[in-house]
Amino acid sequence: MTTVRSPASVSRDLPPIAITMGDPAGIGPEVIAKAFRDHPGITRGCFVAGDVASLRRGGHAVRGATGVDIPVAEVEWPVTTRALPPRCIPVVPVVTLAHPVPWGRVSAEAGRAAADAVTWAARAALRGEVTALVTAPLHKEALALAGVPFPGHTELLQAEAAAWLGKDLTQVPVRMMLANAELRVVLVSIHMSLRQAIAAVDHAAVLQTLRIAHASLARSLGRRPRIGVAGLNPHAGEGGLFGREEIDVIAPAVAAACAEGIQAHGPYAPDTVFMRARSVDGKPGEFDAVVAMYHDQGLIPVKYLGVEKGVNVTLGLPLVRTSPDHGTAFDIAGTGRADESSLLEAIRVARELTSP
Amino acid sequence: MTTVRSPASVSRDLPPIAITMGDPAGIGPEVIAKAFRDHPGITRGCFVAGDVASLRRGGHAVRGATGVDIPVAEVEWPVTTRALPPRCIPVVPVVTLAHPVPWGRVSAEAGRAAADAVTWAARAALRGEVTALVTAPLHKEALALAGVPFPGHTELLQAEAAAWLGKDLTQVPVRMMLANAELRVVLVSIHMSLRQAIAAVDHAAVLQTLRIAHASLARSLGRRPRIGVAGLNPHAGEGGLFGREEIDVIAPAVAAACAEGIQAHGPYAPDTVFMRARSVDGKPGEFDAVVAMYHDQGLIPVKYLGVEKGVNVTLGLPLVRTSPDHGTAFDIAGTGRADESSLLEAIRVARELTSP
Repeated sequence: MTTVRSPASVSRDLPPIAITMGDPAGIGPEVIAKAFRDHPGITRGCFVAGDVASLRRGGHAVRGATGVDIPVAEVEWPVTTRALPPRCIPVVPVVTLAHPVPWGRVSAEAGRAAADAVTWAARAALRGEVTALVTAPLHKEALALAGVPFPGHTELLQAEAAAWLGKDLTQVPVRMMLANAELRVVLVSIHMSLRQAIAAVDHAAVLQTLRIAHASLARSLGRRPRIGVAGLNPHAGEGGLFGREEIDVIAPAVAAACAEGIQAHGPYAPDTVFMRARSVDGKPGEFDAVVAMYHDQGLIPVKYLGVEKGVNVTLGLPLVRTSPDHGTAFDIAGTGRADESSLLEAIRVARELTSP
Repeated sequence: MTTVRSPASVSRDLPPIAITMGDPAGIGPEVIAKAFRDHPGITRGCFVAGDVASLRRGGHAVRGATGVDIPVAEVEWPVTTRALPPRCIPVVPVVTLAHPVPWGRVSAEAGRAAADAVTWAARAALRGEVTALVTAPLHKEALALAGVPFPGHTELLQAEAAAWLGKDLTQVPVRMMLANAELRVVLVSIHMSLRQAIAAVDHAAVLQTLRIAHASLARSLGRRPRIGVAGLNPHAGEGGLFGREEIDVIAPAVAAACAEGIQAHGPYAPDTVFMRARSVDGKPGEFDAVVAMYHDQGLIPVKYLGVEKGVNVTLGLPLVRTSPDHGTAFDIAGTGRADESSLLEAIRVARELTSP
């Protein structure tokens, strides 16, 4: 026996990581069950914040040829995950569904339970009782049906953080980063119509995105990140012929960021800046990250090669939150076919961002 | 000697393919020179419509270690390319620059010459005197400086076709298709600001795009193509939460297309529909093509893996036109570093689309 403490043993000394169950009608419970059953090394030190029956059902959905349901351990908070055997799912029952919701169906009950689990975990993280949040997917229509006043995780977490800090929402600017093995993108806006997203491209929003991306990446990379900035219009406006946002808004914001010492470049033609940033076969791309002007501009390239390995990270919050970059996949929920790779990657990234 | 006529000998009986030189300050002449010098098999039966001096200069730029300039043959129209030796560039001098334009600089002279070469080739194709057009890149600012009333090839060719047919522009609807080895996308709109592109997503435009994509792909595939349709907004509007264009415009247009026998599916979330359509390792994707709602939505995924092999095809015209999917690359023009792969692929696709 050696007495040298490995990084793993160090990270085990941190509070646990909370995995929120996601919409119980979606694939969240299933991918969580697969992760705990098949990857005990990665899930060690994690627990699920959610509904015990939903996790049991998720475990049953993935039993497949094994014929054996993965055990679900209902644990009390504060959870001592280290005391639990591997290959079981430790669940802190922070919500309880009155009755099971049908797989793949939008419901207010599911939306409410999923949102409540996230709220609980966010507060625990803000108090320092969990190290990070890894969030399984929500369904936005279910949230809306439940009267949850947020279209997704990011906005909910931002509101919780603002309340915790005693600040106004506008004083806790957050941004979504999507990352996979070859590309990181940080988005100026996310869940709004494309029309609204164009209106949201203003000097303050672009500059804020650059500041948040810079600060977060500088911390995780340990050096000044090189940030490429996408234009809004085809060919980045082609000198004003196809829109003036690049000239009037984006270029001045990039200049302001550079004046603050941020290594920002652009705006560049959106259809090639992502390709330029791509790291392939260990050869780093031109940029460590690309700032994208709207949701699909950034997510199309990140997801193009397959969503299995994509991770969503919320930047700017006083807590660490990562998530798989797939949705609830209602079409296959309950079949046991969902792939847990992205969730595992989200756990890995959360650990990376919180390692002392 | 066999008397069986191979497909190659058949295609040699067709009129030649015209390669337009593109903006002479850009990489067009260089990639053309590389194509003729290094790929005589592919360029056989092609000639260049352009300025002789510009092509000579392009050939000089790529001489590299060989130290030898590729010969340029000034040929008369109608060109007899078969009589020429391989590894020389046959140029029909349809335009003549008064003096050389500087590499990598926008100028009205270059824009005018480049546009005139395309106009000449378009008319020759409409008369049936050339089989197809393969167009090297134009620079849109140069076109604007020259007073050319079109932002790019597509619009110019559409106007020429309408004039030839004696029709109104609106009666010759065209669409841009971008294709590489794994993905084809057809765009509802191209060279306009993103704001204008949103306004251009109406029932008629989406339905027309589906009709044009269906007709063209049915011809080249020899069967009914499976067409995936992207939404406009994040998550395809998420049931109306992030915009209503999917509900009000795109879904009804898809339904109308289906009623005409077109195999159209969607609208789907833009950030995953391209990934679903991707053919990888010989495994076909879910769709033969994706209809994208605006320029960058479609071009980001097509270009993400690298632009070397992408081909741009104009659908809906009474002539065949393909082009490489890169631009004038003013930053490297004249250095001889530009890659000719996409031009070669454009020639290959033009031949495929015109083989009897």
